[in-house]
Amino acid sequence: MLNWDTIFASRSSRMRASEIRELLKLLDRPDIISFAGGIPDPALFPDQEFKQAYADIFAGAAVNSALQYSVSEGYKPLREWLVRQMADLGISCELDNVFIVSGSQQGLDYLGKLFLSPNDTALVTWPTYLGALQAFNAYEPAYDQLTPGGNRTPESYRAAAAAAGGKVKFAYLSADFSNPTGETVDLAGRKQVLALAEELDVAVIEDAAYQSLRYDGEPIPPILALEIAEKGNINDTRTIYCGSFSKTLAPGLRVGFIVANAPVIRKLVLMKQAADLHSSTINQMAIADVAERGFDAQVAKIKAAYSHRRNCMLAALEKYMPKGTSWTKPEGGMFIWITLPKGMDGAKLLAKSLETAKVAFVPGKAFFADGSGANTFRVSFSCANQQMIEDGVGRLGKLIKDEIGV
Amino acid sequence: MLNWDTIFASRSSRMRASEIRELLKLLDRPDIISFAGGIPDPALFPDQEFKQAYADIFAGAAVNSALQYSVSEGYKPLREWLVRQMADLGISCELDNVFIVSGSQQGLDYLGKLFLSPNDTALVTWPTYLGALQAFNAYEPAYDQLTPGGNRTPESYRAAAAAAGGKVKFAYLSADFSNPTGETVDLAGRKQVLALAEELDVAVIEDAAYQSLRYDGEPIPPILALEIAEKGNINDTRTIYCGSFSKTLAPGLRVGFIVANAPVIRKLVLMKQAADLHSSTINQMAIADVAERGFDAQVAKIKAAYSHRRNCMLAALEKYMPKGTSWTKPEGGMFIWITLPKGMDGAKLLAKSLETAKVAFVPGKAFFADGSGANTFRVSFSCANQQMIEDGVGRLGKLIKDEIGV
Repeated sequence: MLNWDTIFASRSSRMRASEIRELLKLLDRPDIISFAGGIPDPALFPDQEFKQAYADIFAGAAVNSALQYSVSEGYKPLREWLVRQMADLGISCELDNVFIVSGSQQGLDYLGKLFLSPNDTALVTWPTYLGALQAFNAYEPAYDQLTPGGNRTPESYRAAAAAAGGKVKFAYLSADFSNPTGETVDLAGRKQVLALAEELDVAVIEDAAYQSLRYDGEPIPPILALEIAEKGNINDTRTIYCGSFSKTLAPGLRVGFIVANAPVIRKLVLMKQAADLHSSTINQMAIADVAERGFDAQVAKIKAAYSHRRNCMLAALEKYMPKGTSWTKPEGGMFIWITLPKGMDGAKLLAKSLETAKVAFVPGKAFFADGSGANTFRVSFSCANQQMIEDGVGRLGKLIKDEIGV
Repeated sequence: MLNWDTIFASRSSRMRASEIRELLKLLDRPDIISFAGGIPDPALFPDQEFKQAYADIFAGAAVNSALQYSVSEGYKPLREWLVRQMADLGISCELDNVFIVSGSQQGLDYLGKLFLSPNDTALVTWPTYLGALQAFNAYEPAYDQLTPGGNRTPESYRAAAAAAGGKVKFAYLSADFSNPTGETVDLAGRKQVLALAEELDVAVIEDAAYQSLRYDGEPIPPILALEIAEKGNINDTRTIYCGSFSKTLAPGLRVGFIVANAPVIRKLVLMKQAADLHSSTINQMAIADVAERGFDAQVAKIKAAYSHRRNCMLAALEKYMPKGTSWTKPEGGMFIWITLPKGMDGAKLLAKSLETAKVAFVPGKAFFADGSGANTFRVSFSCANQQMIEDGVGRLGKLIKDEIGV
């Protein structure tokens, strides 16, 4: 019998099970209140709109093209809708700047594949989106800490990357309501990331998965919009904007997008052609139809629900969390990030919580490329109602109080 | 402005535009008779069945899960259907041997990613499926020629792979009605590929995209079935079977599958989790429903239509092709492979044909990993009716006659 480890590529050694995915299984246990998932509330899906969209496809002349192979860059009317949508964000672009992917996770995988040779360095925040680390890991990079607004010099990044055996290739960050912290990078921080990338002459990957979900505070322009304003043309920019319909319309269709300068888009289209030909034709058509008919109304509906849940959770944290703990106050998104006293361990707390408090969350360590962050964890409010939040945070607060011994 | 070439990974230099894809654009020119595409005839899509499947999803309790994130290994009822389907082919397997991908092209990409470190060797036939070369190229392999039934020794493969800077990792082939030649590997050839893989201790990747489309002749067991018969258990096998619904039901949904031993499937599931989370939930549900209700009837319908077209094309080739040309006589699939006299060039012939004969086809060179095969080309009969075939092959035959000067 073949010993597979002897013929797997070296990159496969970094493919490991995802803590988040394993934890999703807990959602099925009825005695557990789960704040672990980062998934949208299915009760808010625009299911009637999708029902109509699919029915219309099968009622019309488009049915044959919906079921057929299509071009790798994506369905043109969807890309046209995105060109208009991006303009509203200050991202002035043309059709050849827009590329459809099978969810923005695929966008991250493709960008890792496009830029990273083994031992090249990706700059990521500590913590960062776990799925980005998983996507990039397949290309065997080193990581260094991106600190928007921080004081690391370009030289220190260059020296660390050379010591790791490669070059810095990009800075990856989520500027709005990031997964896992829910935090926003302010205007100054965005400009500093751009300036750093400029000095290092590398790309910026802007993960905008939660960008539409702002509940209060003033919108801050996307990094790509800031750079277009500065350079005058998207084709002169270094920022690559990754967006998603998973948090606004529905994740099950696997439709996301990348907006960037045309040379990078052209390369990504070739990559997709070789990797999976194109994203589902029929789903791109359905997304285009639902977006066209009522994207803003759908986003307004979600924002009303999620902002209420965020408010409930922030109030419950205030009420139940013991002294010594702290947490973020997100202006949008799905997540709050909790920091325990130094020395405490989120993973151990989870094990105990599942036994006694019966509350699930995601320990923070997996979100840190350097393996730090043991005393942190992530909670999501997107699928929780007021009662669940009150009960769950109450039980969790009591457990932490007992653990700290206050 | 960033010079992107300075920060692209080395693998990106092998990502080039596909001749086939560029040629697909010709399908839109009404004056051209195209035998170039390798796409299914949309008139044969089971559109009413898909219409019903999507309507049923939205009518029932499954709608929320259809629009939601789902597990990376794929939709369970579809995997269960595949377990039953595989049993009919002599592939006895369990649920954990079946993995859903976004089209079998994605399966090839993942297998390249799983096995190939730069300079490792992939054994492929001369010619082979162009899309496989494109998928594997991203992982920077060397290629060596797989000759099912040929007389190369394992030692010569090992030595060539070592000289290229790596190891042989797998043998890739399509055993039934392959793209581009339409040919079938006979039972002895299949056993010889298995024996070679055994001696080299590497994997076999069996691309079964056209497996269902046999029009005449006796079915030959898949390589994986032969190996299971020999070893007694799929989990002791080295053959990885890649299947597709694109040629039988519809390609636009992007649903394919891999059937293999559990350790390889587990690794692929982790890879998919990091690369695009999962294939479209709603499309997997629709495919499962349509397959469950009438896969065999749909395949019978397609086979009746395509076998007639194949007969027409073989008859037209016999009638119009000049002496000195030869072609394959496929028992299934979508393709016939034509060999011109030595010294002729399929690409130059295409350029002339588009001007004068107004017939499109795919020059053969791109299907050869070593850049040979200039005097070959591929025609597809899947989307052509009798009149188109008669006219197109007639015009092409006349052009070739003029070129040869007979």
